[in-house]
Amino acid sequence: MTADRWVPEARLRGDLPVTDAASAAEHVPDDATMLVSGFGSVGYPKAVPLALAEADRDLALTVVSGGSVGSEIDTALVEAGAVARRYPYAGTPEARAAANEGRVATSDRHVSAVADEARFGHYGPPDVAVVEAVACGPDWLVPSGSLGQTPAFVEAADALVVEVNEALPRELALVHDVWTPADPPQREPVPLTDPGERIGSPRIPFDPAKLRAVVRTDRRDDAYEFRDPTPEVEAVAANLRAFLAGEVGRDPCPGRLRMQFGVGSLGNAMMAELGDLDAPVEYVGEVIQDGLLDMVDAGDLSVVSGTALALSREGQDRLFADLERYAEALVLRPAEVSNAPGVVSRMGVVAVNAAVEVDLYGHVNSTHVEGSRLLNGLGGSGDFWRNAALSVVAVPSTAGDGDISRVVPLATHVDHTEHDVDVLVTDHGVADLRGTSPRERAERILACAAPEFRDDLRAYLGRAGDEGHEPHDLPSAFDWRA
Amino acid sequence: MTADRWVPEARLRGDLPVTDAASAAEHVPDDATMLVSGFGSVGYPKAVPLALAEADRDLALTVVSGGSVGSEIDTALVEAGAVARRYPYAGTPEARAAANEGRVATSDRHVSAVADEARFGHYGPPDVAVVEAVACGPDWLVPSGSLGQTPAFVEAADALVVEVNEALPRELALVHDVWTPADPPQREPVPLTDPGERIGSPRIPFDPAKLRAVVRTDRRDDAYEFRDPTPEVEAVAANLRAFLAGEVGRDPCPGRLRMQFGVGSLGNAMMAELGDLDAPVEYVGEVIQDGLLDMVDAGDLSVVSGTALALSREGQDRLFADLERYAEALVLRPAEVSNAPGVVSRMGVVAVNAAVEVDLYGHVNSTHVEGSRLLNGLGGSGDFWRNAALSVVAVPSTAGDGDISRVVPLATHVDHTEHDVDVLVTDHGVADLRGTSPRERAERILACAAPEFRDDLRAYLGRAGDEGHEPHDLPSAFDWRA
Repeated sequence: MTADRWVPEARLRGDLPVTDAASAAEHVPDDATMLVSGFGSVGYPKAVPLALAEADRDLALTVVSGGSVGSEIDTALVEAGAVARRYPYAGTPEARAAANEGRVATSDRHVSAVADEARFGHYGPPDVAVVEAVACGPDWLVPSGSLGQTPAFVEAADALVVEVNEALPRELALVHDVWTPADPPQREPVPLTDPGERIGSPRIPFDPAKLRAVVRTDRRDDAYEFRDPTPEVEAVAANLRAFLAGEVGRDPCPGRLRMQFGVGSLGNAMMAELGDLDAPVEYVGEVIQDGLLDMVDAGDLSVVSGTALALSREGQDRLFADLERYAEALVLRPAEVSNAPGVVSRMGVVAVNAAVEVDLYGHVNSTHVEGSRLLNGLGGSGDFWRNAALSVVAVPSTAGDGDISRVVPLATHVDHTEHDVDVLVTDHGVADLRGTSPRERAERILACAAPEFRDDLRAYLGRAGDEGHEPHDLPSAFDWRA
Repeated sequence: MTADRWVPEARLRGDLPVTDAASAAEHVPDDATMLVSGFGSVGYPKAVPLALAEADRDLALTVVSGGSVGSEIDTALVEAGAVARRYPYAGTPEARAAANEGRVATSDRHVSAVADEARFGHYGPPDVAVVEAVACGPDWLVPSGSLGQTPAFVEAADALVVEVNEALPRELALVHDVWTPADPPQREPVPLTDPGERIGSPRIPFDPAKLRAVVRTDRRDDAYEFRDPTPEVEAVAANLRAFLAGEVGRDPCPGRLRMQFGVGSLGNAMMAELGDLDAPVEYVGEVIQDGLLDMVDAGDLSVVSGTALALSREGQDRLFADLERYAEALVLRPAEVSNAPGVVSRMGVVAVNAAVEVDLYGHVNSTHVEGSRLLNGLGGSGDFWRNAALSVVAVPSTAGDGDISRVVPLATHVDHTEHDVDVLVTDHGVADLRGTSPRERAERILACAAPEFRDDLRAYLGRAGDEGHEPHDLPSAFDWRA
């Protein structure tokens, strides 16, 4: 990995409009489209959103983030009634409730699409970007714990407010690799051929005329808390490991595995299973979680490429204490690079993500409970599953206390279609769906359901009968339990 | 456009194993995975498939094509009971019936994924490629009317049989631009920055040790027959034209439009509406239909990039009579280039495709009637809609004799999700869905339904109520007519 090893010598450089959060918040118009940094619940601005939440103003903001952000935005601002519209992800229970009750017009988007949609004005004219940094100069900033959509947001917005977080190390400059594409029709390929390569700069440039305010803060991110894996999650991880061990040495990447894992305790648990595979492993993903640091420490991982350091507080502290060493392997890219369809496609990634439910023909619901209620958001699951060399749905066969089957006859909401799923791994087995017809898929997927649901699923297939390429009995598709 | 302007001097060059079709067919093992050329119902082999259909053999072939092929394969071979498995498209009524009755294990795939899935063995070990050409040398061939997956198939297969079609002009060499990627992890970006650029060669190279037989033929393709547009289709086309006129000069491609249209009479009719838009238009698509030749003749189109000449017989004759002139604008690329996610994404394409049905939240069914019966196949609709700068579903609001609404509460099969659709155009209007929440989408889409179905759709939304981000009433989702 070649790198421009540069660390800013100071937090603030040049004649900057430093002010307090309340004054900075006045640069956000009442009905602004406000683009905020943040992805994987890290690197989002905190002081200005809190000041907006506390301001005595009649706000109707459109809030656009990179991905998931913390409670200062998705709880405090939402509960203050200051958010009218929200893209592309609702990361807290309060933001989800607002979406589900129709109080906030929320739209769930592919991570790879957000930068262009913001540039092209799909979310309204981009008025102001509010971003967290570890250092700021007259025409540049160094982002904090995530890159996400920040470079595109800074470029697109008419005005810029920067929060310089003094609780985070300036050495985060060592992990950023900022590269942004030109707009079509001048857009050229992302010039990335090796997942560890650096193609950009540690700094995000900006037009100094845009800079309205700089606020000094020391508030840390809401950190991830990983649950201990349940026995079901451990069984999924073990099945995944066994499957991958059989793939090593054949396609899609002879001699090496390039992995992506979705965010959460399941993904984190599965990373722990990869250490002793008989192949070099590279991480070519989106969020970077604690389990990857373990693998770097063990010498099992030479490349960790993503867009956000979605670490626990303990993981953050561990990273910060040894940033120079970790930065040898670790690189953060803008989400429009990490999740770019062309990049994921040519890297030959094995993409592993969880789901809400999977149907017998391989359609996947990632977002909506019973078709209606938004649970999380799509995130980058579509970017990776659609373009991966091998797309793996890894999920326990049941939800709740085991009384809900995640394998169903017909997904109540479809985020990923049968065309995008190669393998299903549950605690009960592995369904290799490559090259299968829908009827063949149904048999293999049924075998991965929890045993207590298999008779009902079998009965559904009986009612669906033998007519059609993908036989269904629509009247009982959603009411299939005996 | 720079080009390597080369036309083969002879049909056959060198010491080739020329033989008859029946003898050539013996090089296809009984249970072979047979990779055939052909896309958009042109450029597929004819003599060898017919010989296989007529052979007194117990065949159980896996047939993999680029896309749609003609009756010699998808009717004759299927009706002979010679096909056990079929990828990635069922292009004739007989092939669809076989898929729907479960006689042929069929799997519908994204066009952009087929080359890699064939290479990686998802369809079984690639035994033999049977491809149509206009000329063949000792280690190269010039394809006929489509490129499709042919370069990848020739590279992947253990053995090669070539049909040299003497009814087609050698000058088709002028339109081919063969470029194939390396496998991951060595894969680099497709080096295409302008849609008219040439990056490859007019010939497909092959290892001479693979060549088993060369067959001379003169049988033309089953040609497309375009229906005259109905008044509904004309209304869709007029609404699309009005919408696009409003987009010219803003995103996604200021000052120019890069268009893709799906195959069929609807797409062909819509092309006719583009001539007098106040912007340069380039075609950056998959299939090339007769309407595009009209635009080239009128001087309205300087670039026509695709993977197949899906022309009517009349259109083929017109093209062949003036190939040198048309080849100034026209270029055929391998489907893994024309449909590459990264290429479509960075070109800023406006992708216009039809659908079977669209639901109130923007999910699209492209393939299955009533969730079960395969109608056509996915083709490249997902490649273009997912990666386009602007994704347009253009479809008459009703099917049948107007007694079936194509706008429904919940799609019975989902091929494209709400995340991938920007605009719906019907004969009753335009629903601009960019930046909308699901509830907002439902209102706009409902307004594009046929008036006689709107009360029932409204009543459905009433039953769905006000709970959830995307409210549904699952018990009545598929039984929603009053």
